[in-house]
This record gives sequence, structure tokens and C-alpha cells, in this order.
Amino acid sequence: MPEAASAPAVRATIGASEFDRDTAVTPRAPGVYDIDLSAGWTIINAVNGGYLLAVLGRALADALPHPDPFTISAHYLTASQPGPAVVRTETVRTGRTLSTGQASLFQQDEHGREVERIRVLASYGDLDSLPDDVRTAAEPPAIPPVEQCFGPEDGPAPVEGSSAIADRLMLKLDPSTLGWALGQPSGKGEMRAWFGLADGRDPDPLSLLLAVDALPPTAFELGLSGWVPTVELTVHVRCRPAPGPLRVSITTRNLAGGFLEEDAEVWDSADRLVAQSRQLARVRLG
Amino acid sequence: MPEAASAPAVRATIGASEFDRDTAVTPRAPGVYDIDLSAGWTIINAVNGGYLLAVLGRALADALPHPDPFTISAHYLTASQPGPAVVRTETVRTGRTLSTGQASLFQQDEHGREVERIRVLASYGDLDSLPDDVRTAAEPPAIPPVEQCFGPEDGPAPVEGSSAIADRLMLKLDPSTLGWALGQPSGKGEMRAWFGLADGRDPDPLSLLLAVDALPPTAFELGLSGWVPTVELTVHVRCRPAPGPLRVSITTRNLAGGFLEEDAEVWDSADRLVAQSRQLARVRLG
Repeated sequence: MPEAASAPAVRATIGASEFDRDTAVTPRAPGVYDIDLSAGWTIINAVNGGYLLAVLGRALADALPHPDPFTISAHYLTASQPGPAVVRTETVRTGRTLSTGQASLFQQDEHGREVERIRVLASYGDLDSLPDDVRTAAEPPAIPPVEQCFGPEDGPAPVEGSSAIADRLMLKLDPSTLGWALGQPSGKGEMRAWFGLADGRDPDPLSLLLAVDALPPTAFELGLSGWVPTVELTVHVRCRPAPGPLRVSITTRNLAGGFLEEDAEVWDSADRLVAQSRQLARVRLG
Repeated sequence: MPEAASAPAVRATIGASEFDRDTAVTPRAPGVYDIDLSAGWTIINAVNGGYLLAVLGRALADALPHPDPFTISAHYLTASQPGPAVVRTETVRTGRTLSTGQASLFQQDEHGREVERIRVLASYGDLDSLPDDVRTAAEPPAIPPVEQCFGPEDGPAPVEGSSAIADRLMLKLDPSTLGWALGQPSGKGEMRAWFGLADGRDPDPLSLLLAVDALPPTAFELGLSGWVPTVELTVHVRCRPAPGPLRVSITTRNLAGGFLEEDAEVWDSADRLVAQSRQLARVRLG
């Protein structure tokens, strides 16, 4: 394992952490769950898409016979707001090793009508049932030790526009992907960071859904500012992460026609590639 | 444009081609379509997943107010068979630039009960409405001229297990990713090919859904044989392809725990990155 953050003095257990409290869903009826979306995971008033995916992922983990999201695809329909929401799930198919489900998150508009915010399709399995073999030679991203990386607390708001969510994350950006914060974007579609939860909760498959969508947009390093709303985000969880900080590497190959993709790789402290994701996002040019 | 295949003497128009005939859906009721799945797109008796995605994509293009799949995610539930099927679509949300829909393909089992084969969630837009700018410097894959690449017709079944679909495709594999066919897999998770439809039909967004899932599995070059069934496949169509052959490059970073991802990039004759896809597939080891 490379040099990494030392563990906080007080480490939250999984059940007691902010992330678990704010993604907890309450069954209302079979397959239907209430959730109070927390204002603690917002960026410039928008609820973070990874946090929302974790909420839906938790509801499906309860509704389906398998515990872990192997592959989960979310289409973001309308902007979620902090406050009450309901998640409705449907079991599409159950099999021996995989089950497939669908989930939608709804909130009420000002007239009391239900508006769908996100729809998700996912196949779940049990990561503990998988053989431990790795047959490829992919390498973790080259990222300096966490002590040489920078977070919001290290300067005058280097992570522009971060809001409440910044207090909940341990996010330390690789200085070589921080040019945008100094007015000198690299022109490369890359963003890399150490990632953890601020209260020290260890990673699990649900927090990986957050990790893939928690870094500043690669568009910043491509010289663009402004909002990059997610249209669709698919995450593959490939391995249960080991305790300790994660390394997240995000790459954009194709910024064209007002859209870009962001590919994320998440590596754990045992140097395993634990999650891969891709999202399609809109770019507000100009 | 690099050296490429010369056009066939008789070039099918889009409407008259085998691909269009075999993906044609017939409206039965609003949002419900009948289709006869052709046996012409099978590989070892299995209906190709990209062909099936194109069928669902065509139904959604009819049902939604926008014509082109910007991002489409499919979860493969049970094995489709050639023969009658029905596609049921649902319009999830319509917006000015994007609309989101869902579609499922069903077939009847031997007792006459409907069985769901595939479920899809997709956001559609209009590729012609996008600005033409490209802001990234991604390069097309290095692949030799088509005359130096190899297809099923060039040797004693070098593309192992290909069946009826081979007659419908112009598929010419880069010899540097053909080691598996000679008993000497490279050990790298790479597969590259020139791709087109055998009857000369030019590519369009729907045929891109086929192109991303038409090459031999990268697992062959990783030294594995046997079936690699798709669990989930997401395709982003980023640009309307120019006429002429496509170049398809597929990469696997992570073969672990009995699963692998396949990332595809599709480049058109104008050197535009027209589609990106990722699939999660199971590997039958041993």
C-alpha cells in the first residue's frame, strides 16, 4: 500500500456514520421506502448525484435478495431537493447469483404532485461469493502521498463551488490536476484524488457509489467553468473495498457537442480496482 | 481518413438493408411493438446482444419525441431466441433537448407465459442539434489498413464460434489482436477491428449499438475461451457517424472475480469518436 492518510483518532463504525444516517431508508410498504434527503451532501444547492445513487442503491439492497450493486445505471430526470422523498422499487428478476431491480426516487412539487427525480436499473449480487482472482495487470493511478495533496481546507476555496458536502468528505486532490484552481487548467481531462468519509467511516459498496461522483468535474481542467449536470451514471462495483482511503482517478476522452463522459476508477488501500464508472454529462459552454 | 475498405459495388440504402429489415418494429398499440427476432444475428445459437439493443433502440426512437439514443443502458435478464417478441416502452420524461424512456423485450416461454429478456433505460436527443465542436485530442486507434486485417472468410474459422452474424458483418480484425486464433493470446485485454454491415449499409446511431458488441470477446486475448455473457451494456452515441467503415477498439482493464468490463470506442471515417460503450460480462473460467 502506498503512503496514505493515517486513520483519524476516532473512527466511525459503518452504522453510526453521517453517510449511513443520511442514506437510511425507512420501509413504508413492500418495496417502497421513505427517505429524508439531507442538505449535508449539496454542492451549490444541488444534491450530489453520487449521494442520491447511494440512497437508491440502499433501497435496492433491501428490496432485492442480493446485497451488493454489481452494476447500477441511473438516469437523472429532474433536480432533487433536500427534504422528504420516496423510493419505489420493483424486482425485475431474481436468479441464483444475480438479481435485477429498478428503483425511482420521487419528490412532491409545490402543488403536492409527485415528480420523478431519478430512475435506476441495477443488477445485484454478493461480492463475498466471488473468487478472489485478478487476471489483469492494471495499475493504480500515480498520485502523490495524501500529505502532498490538497483539499478545500488547505487554501482559499481551491475546490470552487463546494458546499456542505466538503465537510463530509476527506478529499485531497492531486496537485497535478489542480491547475484550474490556480487559473491554469492543464487542458487534460484528468482529475485524481484521495477520497474518504470525513468521519472516518470505512468504504463499502454503497460509499463507492458516492466516490465516483465526488471530485470536481474534469471539465475544469479542460478550461471550462460552470455546471456539468449528469445525464446518466453507471457504476460497476467489482470488489468489496478494504478499509482505508480510496484513490479515485477520473478521465475524459471526449468533450464534444456539448457533452462529455467522465470515467472513474476507484482503487482501495489493498491496490484493488474496486469500482469503475462512466457518466454522460452536459457541459454548459461559455 | 486512413486507408479503408473500398465501397462494395452495390451499396444498400439504409431502408433496404438486412439490418433495417431485421430490426423493424411494428406498432401494435401506443408504445407497444411487435418484432420477429431474426436468426441471422446469432452467435452459437445466442442472439447477439448488440442486435437486440438495436431493436429496443429502434422502438424507443419511435416512442420518444427525440430520434437518437444519447445514452442507453441494457440489463440482459434471460436468453433471447429467434422468433416473435414484443417490446413495451414507457415514456419516463420528455424535455426540450432530452427525453427518457424505458423499454422491455418479452418472449413467450413453452407454456405461453411472457418472459422478460432485456430491460433498457435510455435518454434520447437529436444529434443534429448538437454543436460540431470537439475540444479533446483523443486519437483513433492504431489499426492497420483493412487489407491487412482478417475476417472469418480469410481463414479456417479464425473467429471461433461465429455463426450467422458473420455473414451480415464486414468484420476485419487487427492481426495484433488475433493471437488467440493461433493459440497464442497476447495476454492483453484488447480487440480491434474494422466494422461495417456486409450489404454496405452506412452506419447510423442504431447500427452503432450493434458495432460495440460485435467483436470477439477480449477474454480470448486474455487466454480464456468459452462464453462471456453480457450482464449490462451501456452505450453513449456522441455523433452521427459519417458514411464508410468504422473502427472499433475494445479494452478490458479488469478481469477479476469472474467478471470483466469491455470498453468500446467507435470511430468513423471522418476520425470522429462517435460512440463509447462499457459492458459488464461474466467469464466462465476454466
